[in-house]
Amino acid sequence: MATSRFLRACRREPVDVTPVWFMRQAGRYMAEYRALRERHSLLDICRAPDLATEVTLQPVHRIEVDAAILFSDLLLPLEPMGLPFDFIKGEGPQIESPITSPADIERLKTFEPREALGHVLDAIGMIQRELAGRVPLIGFAGAPFTLASYAIEGGHSNNFARTKALMYGHPGAWHRLADQLAALVADYLVAQIEAGVDAVQVFDSWVGVLSPADYREFALPHTRRIFDTIGGRVPTIHFGTGTAAILHELREAGGDVIGVDWRIPIDTAWERIGADRAVQGNLDPTLLLGPTDRMFTQTDDILQRVGGRAGHIFNLGHGILPSTPVEHVQMLAQYVHSASRRMR
Amino acid sequence: MATSRFLRACRREPVDVTPVWFMRQAGRYMAEYRALRERHSLLDICRAPDLATEVTLQPVHRIEVDAAILFSDLLLPLEPMGLPFDFIKGEGPQIESPITSPADIERLKTFEPREALGHVLDAIGMIQRELAGRVPLIGFAGAPFTLASYAIEGGHSNNFARTKALMYGHPGAWHRLADQLAALVADYLVAQIEAGVDAVQVFDSWVGVLSPADYREFALPHTRRIFDTIGGRVPTIHFGTGTAAILHELREAGGDVIGVDWRIPIDTAWERIGADRAVQGNLDPTLLLGPTDRMFTQTDDILQRVGGRAGHIFNLGHGILPSTPVEHVQMLAQYVHSASRRMR
Repeated sequence: MATSRFLRACRREPVDVTPVWFMRQAGRYMAEYRALRERHSLLDICRAPDLATEVTLQPVHRIEVDAAILFSDLLLPLEPMGLPFDFIKGEGPQIESPITSPADIERLKTFEPREALGHVLDAIGMIQRELAGRVPLIGFAGAPFTLASYAIEGGHSNNFARTKALMYGHPGAWHRLADQLAALVADYLVAQIEAGVDAVQVFDSWVGVLSPADYREFALPHTRRIFDTIGGRVPTIHFGTGTAAILHELREAGGDVIGVDWRIPIDTAWERIGADRAVQGNLDPTLLLGPTDRMFTQTDDILQRVGGRAGHIFNLGHGILPSTPVEHVQMLAQYVHSASRRMR
Repeated sequence: MATSRFLRACRREPVDVTPVWFMRQAGRYMAEYRALRERHSLLDICRAPDLATEVTLQPVHRIEVDAAILFSDLLLPLEPMGLPFDFIKGEGPQIESPITSPADIERLKTFEPREALGHVLDAIGMIQRELAGRVPLIGFAGAPFTLASYAIEGGHSNNFARTKALMYGHPGAWHRLADQLAALVADYLVAQIEAGVDAVQVFDSWVGVLSPADYREFALPHTRRIFDTIGGRVPTIHFGTGTAAILHELREAGGDVIGVDWRIPIDTAWERIGADRAVQGNLDPTLLLGPTDRMFTQTDDILQRVGGRAGHIFNLGHGILPSTPVEHVQMLAQYVHSASRRMR
């Protein structure tokens, strides 16, 4: 397993071809997933280890990916903190009673992930038995800023005004919230590692809405605590979108691999991140809607910018869109392998 | 008027204090505006020159701004093209029948802005008479990418997947649409200039969702056409958000002044833009929610990064939020003047 091309690339070791996996590689774009969702809600699947295992493996069976990623949801840790939520059709997640004041933060509960989220750890064991070493398994969790933004906004936001208002207006309460989230997420990821994942990705999906100074003050110390706790147990990936101006700060917070979106050329991004880290990315997921010639041309561009340097993991700049044809995803994974083989 | 500090700063000439204005300086955060909106819809105000004049002047009376900006809406040109729309409470604009195919683009109409949008030009004349040279008046329009994205998405979007799918899947149709929008917007802005505005801002608010290569292929040539048509008639401002990685491309498309959001420090942005352009920005609008000490500290940081260089116009990185206390906006404008005077 340690010799898999995905894990080798995380460590910036030479590989035969560029490893590839896709954020949301299990999801609505696959007929198998949609069929299962007719009978089970998203949260049902997350909470039932056998269903989570089935969905995690769906893309591994159909697509030439070099890693599986645990099927789960970023928001799972919120419920045992006292912030129950649900998914509203067409609108995404909705927190029942979002945080609106420092007092709401004082009332939050802490929890033991091995109990409250034991079903995730059980799923990891089942997935690893099914995978039987075929590809490594990636675990994941949300970073404190992104988790806090859901807890405060109550769902998706365009401007994150409530989150920033709490940050600016009650910095002490913000830091207590982020610190509590960091401690829980770190513990949860260590539990995932103990349960058997081979790498972890920390999703700070919305952190690109912060200025560099705000990132440094309100997000960096908490995210760093997570990476420091994990230490060298397994390779770590640190992902965000819209981060062109804070890549150096993300790197400072931690991660063996920094995930980059399509808004910045991958070679420019890598220069800002530094050659001592691996890089993951960075095709625009809308290119997978077609036509495929443009998808391949842009893939060539990414591979050429990387120029065969060790430490590149091919991925999209964000998750696969639900309307993506599965054939395009299959073709893209194959193409990354064949084109990067030709370039070596 | 040509000696106003706003227009001098656009031309990178020395000024006594840093000029300041705010995107959405007329809007919901002001009680006068909310009172008017109880009796008139947003579109009613845009279409009635006396109401548009009243709203345009509201912030000029209350806040120490160095420019007025025409009260209007980016989407007005869509209706005479055959794309009627309305504003749905709490959801923003909604296009009745968004563009879904190249055939929809073929059916679009062209129009003469001096007829179809004559009420805007009438408002400009009325506003200038009322302003009587007190401060310059800025006209504006949307850039082709941002206008096309509304026409295709039908309203606000999180991922602009429909827009990009049309761009990638039907590049010929996309370029016809963007070219038609560029011709209309250029004509509309020239008409605004003839009606008396002293400067114009082109809003490419959502263009930050494009990769540099996509910006260069799908947006730049059309936006450039607008700036080329305006020529040297009046100073031009080119604004977008999330543009940290495409600032050099925005500059290439045109604009005497490049508008920058808070995601990138203003001095770093200015280096990428080049010293031969002026820069506008870049306080995070959520800082105006309070507390004010943080708003002032970040304002100091911006002024210090600029370091007294000629060619800085103070503004926010995006529009004033509706929940902003009007006193904070008043204090901020005063502070920019007094702090920049002290620094000189």
